[in-house]
Amino acid sequence: MIDFEPHYRRVEQLIYAWARAIDEDRVEHIAELLFDDGRYTVKSRFNHDRGLPLAVIDAQSAAQLRDRILSMRKANVYQPQHYRHMLSGVHIASGDDNTFEVTHNFLIVRTMDLSGDMKIFATGQCHDLIVLTPEGAKFKERLFLFDSRVVETLMVIPL
Amino acid sequence: MIDFEPHYRRVEQLIYAWARAIDEDRVEHIAELLFDDGRYTVKSRFNHDRGLPLAVIDAQSAAQLRDRILSMRKANVYQPQHYRHMLSGVHIASGDDNTFEVTHNFLIVRTMDLSGDMKIFATGQCHDLIVLTPEGAKFKERLFLFDSRVVETLMVIPL
Amino acid sequence: MIDFEPHYRRVEQLIYAWARAIDEDRVEHIAELLFDDGRYTVKSRFNHDRGLPLAVIDAQSAAQLRDRILSMRKANVYQPQHYRHMLSGVHIASGDDNTFEVTHNFLIVRTMDLSGDMKIFATGQCHDLIVLTPEGAKFKERLFLFDSRVVETLMVIPL
Repeated sequence: MIDFEPHYRRVEQLIYAWARAIDEDRVEHIAELLFDDGRYTVKSRFNHDRGLPLAVIDAQSAAQLRDRILSMRKANVYQPQHYRHMLSGVHIASGDDNTFEVTHNFLIVRTMDLSGDMKIFATGQCHDLIVLTPEGAKFKERLFLFDSRVVETLMVIPL
Repeated sequence: MIDFEPHYRRVEQLIYAWARAIDEDRVEHIAELLFDDGRYTVKSRFNHDRGLPLAVIDAQSAAQLRDRILSMRKANVYQPQHYRHMLSGVHIASGDDNTFEVTHNFLIVRTMDLSGDMKIFATGQCHDLIVLTPEGAKFKERLFLFDSRVVETLMVIPL
Repeated sequence: MIDFEPHYRRVEQLIYAWARAIDEDRVEHIAELLFDDGRYTVKSRFNHDRGLPLAVIDAQSAAQLRDRILSMRKANVYQPQHYRHMLSGVHIASGDDNTFEVTHNFLIVRTMDLSGDMKIFATGQCHDLIVLTPEGAKFKERLFLFDSRVVETLMVIPL
């Protein structure tokens, strides 16, 4: 059995860095953390468990993710809001010397800038494929499975 | 003073594994993480602080915990729902080479499968007695103290 | 580039210890974790981003923080309540051998003792300056930036 401990911190901190970029309104940065041919998918647990393909976001490259973020910045009309990511239970489920399957739980609180309303926007589990490179750790795949289908129609900012 | 760092990851990951089993609807697995003569108790902070014995769950062996889970699966009638565990602040308070007293905070969000309603179901602090064995870490005792007595009448799935 | 890993656990556990003292109603203890000439500030993200000085709490020494806590215990009239801290994403952003700039996210659930009502009281990001001393790690500065200005008028207990 491989001991993942020497790699745990880098894996965990990569996951934290993604969340921090979004919370700090530097969402463009997340595309830098995804391989060019990486995949970023946000989907309901309900659809995933039934093998249904429908996803809220399914970017099949870093370029597609950049487009999505650009559209959020330029085209979408939505109330000013921001997220706060709470992440828990980072677990390296399997891997070899430099590629790891990792899961963790997320809870995102959304605050509306004008009214100050706070609410739990999404909870769920994230499944990642993370690769260590000489330049640092990066995501090959991110699959966010959120718990409540109510989220689907409301998502503007990536998770 | 003993340095707990070499054992921290195993302790933390055991705690995460319990939560993951429940969140992933594999709740039967938690009984495997408890010693045969282990104890699993869920109680309000209010009762605990006053020395009152009343607990929502008080399984005094892994077998009793299995019964409780079986009853949940077979006998109880309740709306389909699932939990999402957020865990924070894992702290080894004391211990020796292979037995540790550990605390952490928990927040559990419950999502109703049909309506999609999400709410904070319970928050609190967990007190664990964890033993390292050649076959891995296991719980000797788990005491979940939840913050709000409102929780008491509603609990079906173990925390 | 400095490797912060050897210091990570002490930094993280110091942050957890502060939260635990408040959650366990031993709030006086937090003043022991701040240097005598340390600073503890709680401020809205809104004010901070605009360079506005107004803060909910701005204790410029451990003695000032003790005064604030004493006032909470003796003078303030408020409904019995307590906090549950959920902390996430502890990240050492920079530092040298014994001083570290650290950030993390917080989410605090407040439970009213009488009614049992639970709500998300505050979320935000905390910026710390932490110094390792021979007697252990301590805070030189703590800056809590909370996300929603709605919090401001309600805070009795320190975060």
